[in-house]
Amino acid sequence: MDRPELKDAIARLRAAAPLVHNITNFVAMNATANALLAIGASPAMIDAIEEVADFTPQAAALVVNIGTLSRDRLASMECAAAKASEIGVPWILDPVAAGSTPYRTAAAMTLAQLRPAVIRGNASEILTLGGDARAVPKGVESVHRPEAARAAAGRLAVALGTVIAVTGATDYVTDGRRLAAVANGHPLLTRVTATGCMATALIGAFLGAGLAPFDAAVAGLVTLGVAAEIAAAGAAGPGSFQVALMDALYRLDDAIMTARARVQ
Amino acid sequence: MDRPELKDAIARLRAAAPLVHNITNFVAMNATANALLAIGASPAMIDAIEEVADFTPQAAALVVNIGTLSRDRLASMECAAAKASEIGVPWILDPVAAGSTPYRTAAAMTLAQLRPAVIRGNASEILTLGGDARAVPKGVESVHRPEAARAAAGRLAVALGTVIAVTGATDYVTDGRRLAAVANGHPLLTRVTATGCMATALIGAFLGAGLAPFDAAVAGLVTLGVAAEIAAAGAAGPGSFQVALMDALYRLDDAIMTARARVQ
Amino acid sequence: MDRPELKDAIARLRAAAPLVHNITNFVAMNATANALLAIGASPAMIDAIEEVADFTPQAAALVVNIGTLSRDRLASMECAAAKASEIGVPWILDPVAAGSTPYRTAAAMTLAQLRPAVIRGNASEILTLGGDARAVPKGVESVHRPEAARAAAGRLAVALGTVIAVTGATDYVTDGRRLAAVANGHPLLTRVTATGCMATALIGAFLGAGLAPFDAAVAGLVTLGVAAEIAAAGAAGPGSFQVALMDALYRLDDAIMTARARVQ
Repeated sequence: MDRPELKDAIARLRAAAPLVHNITNFVAMNATANALLAIGASPAMIDAIEEVADFTPQAAALVVNIGTLSRDRLASMECAAAKASEIGVPWILDPVAAGSTPYRTAAAMTLAQLRPAVIRGNASEILTLGGDARAVPKGVESVHRPEAARAAAGRLAVALGTVIAVTGATDYVTDGRRLAAVANGHPLLTRVTATGCMATALIGAFLGAGLAPFDAAVAGLVTLGVAAEIAAAGAAGPGSFQVALMDALYRLDDAIMTARARVQ
Repeated sequence: MDRPELKDAIARLRAAAPLVHNITNFVAMNATANALLAIGASPAMIDAIEEVADFTPQAAALVVNIGTLSRDRLASMECAAAKASEIGVPWILDPVAAGSTPYRTAAAMTLAQLRPAVIRGNASEILTLGGDARAVPKGVESVHRPEAARAAAGRLAVALGTVIAVTGATDYVTDGRRLAAVANGHPLLTRVTATGCMATALIGAFLGAGLAPFDAAVAGLVTLGVAAEIAAAGAAGPGSFQVALMDALYRLDDAIMTARARVQ
Repeated sequence: MDRPELKDAIARLRAAAPLVHNITNFVAMNATANALLAIGASPAMIDAIEEVADFTPQAAALVVNIGTLSRDRLASMECAAAKASEIGVPWILDPVAAGSTPYRTAAAMTLAQLRPAVIRGNASEILTLGGDARAVPKGVESVHRPEAARAAAGRLAVALGTVIAVTGATDYVTDGRRLAAVANGHPLLTRVTATGCMATALIGAFLGAGLAPFDAAVAGLVTLGVAAEIAAAGAAGPGSFQVALMDALYRLDDAIMTARARVQ
């Protein structure tokens, strides 16, 4: 991490303590809020159509995650995302399980057009957003390796004017021009639910702290990856790993990040 | 566990890594997803009426849990359950708190008619499904011991053509002809929320791995019971117990299961 | 804690094992249920408009928390709260993030009129309920110290005929005539989501055990605060803190409470 912007990413996040507005799924809500609190952000989960347009402008960033989609929730997501783009609140899209049903694919496509600063997904989801109709995931899990979606991610980033993060064993971040590979992480992340959602929310927190989208995406993925490595060292399985992950996020600082980041 | 089918139940589950479609309650969603990941299944929580009929056919099994019921969720449950039965995806019903309100009892009765492979409930819930109008539970907790519902379970299994699992201090599994008693478990399971929902989901995972409904029910209950015994050994209370439970599910194998199973 | 009623509060709660009906937010549901189980209550999360009026009368207390509000959920809350007040089931209101949007403020105001036994909120929320239109919180977090809301809490308590608990570094409980300050607690409570919701639910449990509203509010806040102090002693961060918090609630007894309570 030789980019100056990332050297003090954690310190900037903690100083800003950004209010992050999340419209996320029911599986991830609690874990996402706890990850955001652990890293130093201030999460709020507010999703009623009656109030999202009033709330988003108060936030430093918006996180939209389609995990447990419904007609009402999609309407709130579209409303909040449009508002965020209109007034300059950076927002991130997590197109969970895009490709698994026509409804879900269409919802992800619609939201992707509303100018998110970042889109984070697994390879199958990003391939789906790129128009590959054969990229059907296995539920919420990718059936493709992230390398398979790297080229599609670059094209999609240019087409949408956004940053795309494709996550997997190695994560790739691209704006169509630059490409970063993040090799931090641990296989236990795949045995705890909502860790992809946490990655998305952490990127949202760095957006809220004022980092540029490309830097925020790299910082968020390195943060989760390094915390996971620390947590896995003492874990007996996914239960103790998840507990240690929250502790590690809380204790992380820029010195640890700089020493352990594996970014190319 | 002298039945050949159960001897390699965990190995079969891990080899299949079945996609388990859950329409479950908001309290249990996160813990259920984590239990399924820990044991080796691939959970997905997708519940919008716009997409369940497209998603269920992709799954190896369906779990329907009426914990936090609503009109919209009930419609999705009925749609997914009907689809599952139509195309041969095995599914399991958890009639949470059936008997506590007329609405909930009617919903459970309707779903029970849609040919679930297994129904898992506590004694009050199973007595309610069996038509006993006096079997009002205390919220989500049973006021009856499982032994009190054993005969009703047998009749209900025959009437519905399903397997019934009545859980409590001792669990009973019956198809109306065979009866198995599972004595594994630990009292701390009653001090953590959603452990009944986890039992249901684990049975769903074994259904998804191709076990016959009776065997899947026994395997799921033994799995949770053995993991609970291991977890309780080092726990200081329900918090550390729940963490250790996930670790134990992850580390469980057929040798441990065979050695510790108490099935009659 | 020299008040006789509080000396055996935990023992009374465990003997009663009160059924606590929660209509709460999606972030807090699981943690709230686990906190209630750990302390010895019997939680149920039932929130459909089709059944709340049938369920509330079975409960010993009702907890209404507007965290993730929606039109449907608000209707259920109003229905359950009105029913509870009509038939004498004590209930508690948690006006999460009141002040942050007009919709949320109006909902909190409407519910506050339905005769809750206790209202628990942070300073910004209580100031909002007291009519201070400038008391806009930062998402779900207060921007005011509890001392700033103490006078407003007293006036509000008299106007609504209820007990108000304003929580923060020090908590204040008042019925407009009496005032108690609870100094128990730990800063890590602010780095775990839904701990305010847990405080509300614990007060609900003591209401369900038959304590008077003022005593229930003090008992609930002391319970959470003492458990937090015990949990923090061995915690490496918010992850291990949350686990230890559940263990501490489970192991708490009146001797520990009496020895550690800091109430004035």
